[in-house]
Amino acid sequence: MAAVTLSVSTLKPLGDRVFVKVSAAEEKTAGGILLPDNAKEKPQVGEIVAVGPGKRNDDGSRSEIEVKEGDKVLYSKYAGTDIKLGTDEYVLLSEKDILAIVS
Amino acid sequence: MAAVTLSVSTLKPLGDRVFVKVSAAEEKTAGGILLPDNAKEKPQVGEIVAVGPGKRNDDGSRSEIEVKEGDKVLYSKYAGTDIKLGTDEYVLLSEKDILAIVS
Amino acid sequence: MAAVTLSVSTLKPLGDRVFVKVSAAEEKTAGGILLPDNAKEKPQVGEIVAVGPGKRNDDGSRSEIEVKEGDKVLYSKYAGTDIKLGTDEYVLLSEKDILAIVS
Amino acid sequence: MAAVTLSVSTLKPLGDRVFVKVSAAEEKTAGGILLPDNAKEKPQVGEIVAVGPGKRNDDGSRSEIEVKEGDKVLYSKYAGTDIKLGTDEYVLLSEKDILAIVS
Amino acid sequence: MAAVTLSVSTLKPLGDRVFVKVSAAEEKTAGGILLPDNAKEKPQVGEIVAVGPGKRNDDGSRSEIEVKEGDKVLYSKYAGTDIKLGTDEYVLLSEKDILAIVS
Amino acid sequence: MAAVTLSVSTLKPLGDRVFVKVSAAEEKTAGGILLPDNAKEKPQVGEIVAVGPGKRNDDGSRSEIEVKEGDKVLYSKYAGTDIKLGTDEYVLLSEKDILAIVS
Amino acid sequence: MAAVTLSVSTLKPLGDRVFVKVSAAEEKTAGGILLPDNAKEKPQVGEIVAVGPGKRNDDGSRSEIEVKEGDKVLYSKYAGTDIKLGTDEYVLLSEKDILAIVS
Repeated sequence: MAAVTLSVSTLKPLGDRVFVKVSAAEEKTAGGILLPDNAKEKPQVGEIVAVGPGKRNDDGSRSEIEVKEGDKVLYSKYAGTDIKLGTDEYVLLSEKDILAIVS
Repeated sequence: MAAVTLSVSTLKPLGDRVFVKVSAAEEKTAGGILLPDNAKEKPQVGEIVAVGPGKRNDDGSRSEIEVKEGDKVLYSKYAGTDIKLGTDEYVLLSEKDILAIVS
Repeated sequence: MAAVTLSVSTLKPLGDRVFVKVSAAEEKTAGGILLPDNAKEKPQVGEIVAVGPGKRNDDGSRSEIEVKEGDKVLYSKYAGTDIKLGTDEYVLLSEKDILAIVS
Repeated sequence: MAAVTLSVSTLKPLGDRVFVKVSAAEEKTAGGILLPDNAKEKPQVGEIVAVGPGKRNDDGSRSEIEVKEGDKVLYSKYAGTDIKLGTDEYVLLSEKDILAIVS
Repeated sequence: MAAVTLSVSTLKPLGDRVFVKVSAAEEKTAGGILLPDNAKEKPQVGEIVAVGPGKRNDDGSRSEIEVKEGDKVLYSKYAGTDIKLGTDEYVLLSEKDILAIVS
Repeated sequence: MAAVTLSVSTLKPLGDRVFVKVSAAEEKTAGGILLPDNAKEKPQVGEIVAVGPGKRNDDGSRSEIEVKEGDKVLYSKYAGTDIKLGTDEYVLLSEKDILAIVS
Repeated sequence: MAAVTLSVSTLKPLGDRVFVKVSAAEEKTAGGILLPDNAKEKPQVGEIVAVGPGKRNDDGSRSEIEVKEGDKVLYSKYAGTDIKLGTDEYVLLSEKDILAIVS
């Protein structure tokens, strides 16, 4: 097998999965509103860079994913699979692990 | 990614989630009725500030959330995800973790 | 948020939940029939003071709750969430945790 | 709340529950057939004294309970909730914990 | 309650349960084929003496039990509830714990 | 009960179960392709000798088993119930524990 | 039973299983993008060499597998069953354990 190029543009999530770029800890939130300190160690905010086709229903149809590329989201600590591409951190989440859109 | 502004007005819960402002411990309940002492350490009362669109059913419809913005609610201790915005504490709960409306 | 008044009359259970006033241990049962001693430490008998609208079914209808305000009930030890209002103890139970009507 | 009278005649099981009078250990089984010794310490045989209305189905109908008052039954050790009324022992079981009718 | 007569002929399994007479360890299998040694300590072969009416389906019909009285069966070690009647050992199994018919 | 003859020809799996003769460790795989060493201690390859009628569906029909007698299969280590007939080892597996057909 | 030939060409996954050739650690990813170091010890990238027929639905139809032979995929660490054929490592995965297509 030839070398696999893992890059943001070529990674396509499957099913109900969402590919999220983790927000760096040094990116302070605006407006004087801060995440608690422990959030700097375990980021819970990120930006969606790709979404899967949605979970397949029992009848073969799909439940379209409700978030879209570009959405900033809050997600469950400990959820998903961490992936590092170069110096950037990403996480592959199931849609259900996304708690809220934050902007 | 630009800095994310986490604020009450921009945070939109997904699915069956409800965004709740935790009632401060020093806010004594009125009418001579008090929560037990341990409730001051682990608040279980809060006010809803935003609700999600509701859980998607298997047929694509949604189960509308039964509580609404402004409701004071009693919720399960230990449920949900704690979020701190400035000095205020919030919690993102699933609707099913809300036990009762208290006013 | 203004102070929340937790009182029996304003607390409305959600879903399939039932609000129950715990029977005080000193209230001996009538007719020479007694609960075992350990029941005095962990009451399992109470009177229903409010019932929720019932569990929502998948098709949007509700399964009406089978017990009603005023029913004396026997419920599972360890079930539900304990709430103290003044000197009285209450418990918020799911309907399924109620074992039997006792009078 | 007035004193609750717990008695066999007023206790009405809910849902798929069955109210069973535990067979006293000294009641030897007839015909030279005996339960193993440990059954005397943890009775598994009893007589049904009341049955609930049956489990509610998803469509609102009920699955009628298959055992009836007067049936002698064998039930799972450890199942249900033990209740003592005077000197008699009872157990509130789910119908599914009843293994067999024994007479 | 009068004494309960536990006997093979009067015990009627409920639901999907099957009443099985455990094969005594000294009953060597025929044809030079033996069960492993540890099978003598924890028998896994038996003969069906009674079957229940079958598991009730959601629509009220029943899934008839596939084994019948007289079948010799192999069943899961550790499954079911052991019952001793006189010197004979029996086990009450769920149909799903029966692995195979052995003759 | 007469002695039970446990033999390959008379053992009929029930439901979705499959009866598999475990491949002896000394049977090296052909073509220079070997299983890892630990496979010799815990065989994961076998040949199907009998299949059950298939899992019964909720509507009473059956999901026919996809493997058939004679298939060589790879199955989950630790799955199923081990049975020894004479010097041969067998395993009773659920169809879902079979990972692949290997020839 | 004759010797079983385990080879890539003859191994046919069942159900929703996918047969994946694990990407060797020395195959650096192209474009300056690297997997984190620990990925070298526990590979999570591979190339699909065979797919099963898909999971059978309750009505007998099948949910076709969404990935195909030749796809490079990212899969859950710890998922599936490891198989070694000669010096190559393979893994048998359930489709749901595949997180994304990576090229």
